[in-house]
Amino acid sequence: MTPKIIRTIVELRQAIAEFRKLSEDNRSVGFVPTMGYLHEGHASLLRQSASDNGLTVLSIFVNPLQFGPNEDLDKYPRDEERDIKVAATAGTNIIFIPALSEMYPNQALTHISVSEITERLCGASRPGHFDGVAIVVTKLFNIVQPDRAYFGLKDAQQLAVISQMTQDLNIPVEIVPCPILREEDGLALSSRNVYLDEDQRSQALILSQSLSASTDWIQAGISASELIAKLKAEISKAPLAKIDYVDVLTYPNLSQLNKDRPLNENNNDLLIAVAVYFGKTRLIDNRLLNPVEVGEGLCFAK
Amino acid sequence: MTPKIIRTIVELRQAIAEFRKLSEDNRSVGFVPTMGYLHEGHASLLRQSASDNGLTVLSIFVNPLQFGPNEDLDKYPRDEERDIKVAATAGTNIIFIPALSEMYPNQALTHISVSEITERLCGASRPGHFDGVAIVVTKLFNIVQPDRAYFGLKDAQQLAVISQMTQDLNIPVEIVPCPILREEDGLALSSRNVYLDEDQRSQALILSQSLSASTDWIQAGISASELIAKLKAEISKAPLAKIDYVDVLTYPNLSQLNKDRPLNENNNDLLIAVAVYFGKTRLIDNRLLNPVEVGEGLCFAK
Repeated sequence: MTPKIIRTIVELRQAIAEFRKLSEDNRSVGFVPTMGYLHEGHASLLRQSASDNGLTVLSIFVNPLQFGPNEDLDKYPRDEERDIKVAATAGTNIIFIPALSEMYPNQALTHISVSEITERLCGASRPGHFDGVAIVVTKLFNIVQPDRAYFGLKDAQQLAVISQMTQDLNIPVEIVPCPILREEDGLALSSRNVYLDEDQRSQALILSQSLSASTDWIQAGISASELIAKLKAEISKAPLAKIDYVDVLTYPNLSQLNKDRPLNENNNDLLIAVAVYFGKTRLIDNRLLNPVEVGEGLCFAK
Repeated sequence: MTPKIIRTIVELRQAIAEFRKLSEDNRSVGFVPTMGYLHEGHASLLRQSASDNGLTVLSIFVNPLQFGPNEDLDKYPRDEERDIKVAATAGTNIIFIPALSEMYPNQALTHISVSEITERLCGASRPGHFDGVAIVVTKLFNIVQPDRAYFGLKDAQQLAVISQMTQDLNIPVEIVPCPILREEDGLALSSRNVYLDEDQRSQALILSQSLSASTDWIQAGISASELIAKLKAEISKAPLAKIDYVDVLTYPNLSQLNKDRPLNENNNDLLIAVAVYFGKTRLIDNRLLNPVEVGEGLCFAK
């Protein structure tokens, strides 16, 4: 199946309206918003959408509003041709690739922010990032008007922010969280992995490895502050690693825990999240845990 | 026709989905969001919607987020029974009357703000007011998902803010501005008029009278600063009037004009807006002008 490439909002709305009008059985629309440079993680979202819905819409838009002034907007990797091939094999029907001027035609005066859950982790490291995410996701939701939208748990905080916003604003879209996809050796898939040189790539495994080890440490009765210290020590064994943050918080509220209490006595679902630079490349990874069961659970997908 | 009274979001969405599915000809939905205590101005919006659409939804919700701490939230007039009668005679199909807990079930963490055009007039006098308006209108739009929404030009700044937000966020709703309705003697209709005693009510006529006189003054070549001074002097002739603001700005951008240049040389549509207290009651009124033609034009409805 060759996906239809659409670059304007008017044409996209027409195509979706036509589908909803003409489709005989499954009229639901699934949506996967991305910044392109698709990897197997994106493909898994598309496949999930194609399995759930009659029509799957992928958007590719590198949203400048979610990049800080010193971030990698200009060099963010792009490969439209390859993206189209990946999307086609994953069951995508429509690929929406708007120009910057299509998404932001005039000076926008409207701002959206989500408080509290954006204050830590990537929200603290990247001021304004989640405001930019909130605006573009709201716009894309209003343009596509999907029944369901698919987001990877790799960006666990982003998922929490979007879920909160969707609920607060009564946006009629079901948010579907999907598991993190990893390379065979454990590295979480990311468009930014392409920046890594060989040494960085091999040392970056410390992220998934130390997150995996966390479950045993928690089972042994470690506290939040002990876990954070142990993760930091473990990650610092990789000489090229420069830690941005290591934290453990409740999920999806992202509130702080009693730092001294054993984590396996806690009743909340937990997010262990790390952000680490290898050279100029900032990688994130995380693990969602139900500490009472001490097993990995996609707790948010319940 | 007796409108259907609905108090929950789930039931409202069901009723609208059913209408869209079953209606044979005009499937469009018109929406009139209000805080209740309906007057002829609201009725005119409902009649316009009923004439344009197959289904007309009225919402009645006194939104606490748009009231400041020292404003009239607690004493805001309410009369559900009378509202239902007014709505019925104006062609309303559904009246949505949500409880506070239905609209704000949890602590909301999502905030919307519109910059620049909220900085003057009521936005300056009522800090946070338009943030509250933006949130509730966004929520109601997402709940009702109307094709068209109707707003009175009485709240000209509100209309400008909502139009800007709708455009910025790609909300798929057509915003339809409707003219100010007035009593025979000129007083602009407002739910708050009920607060006025006899003296205040009669002195409040100075607002519409001085706004009407403005067109002649502008034709004579007056500047913005002269117009503002003249309006303030005129309004101050009413001993009970306490001016909150008097201003003339471009519309719908609400940007400042060159204060010394004759207004009839200006090419923008203009908004002359006043807010005046009579006792504790704050009344607003305005006039939209195309100064080149020096006639009242509903310029925003073009």
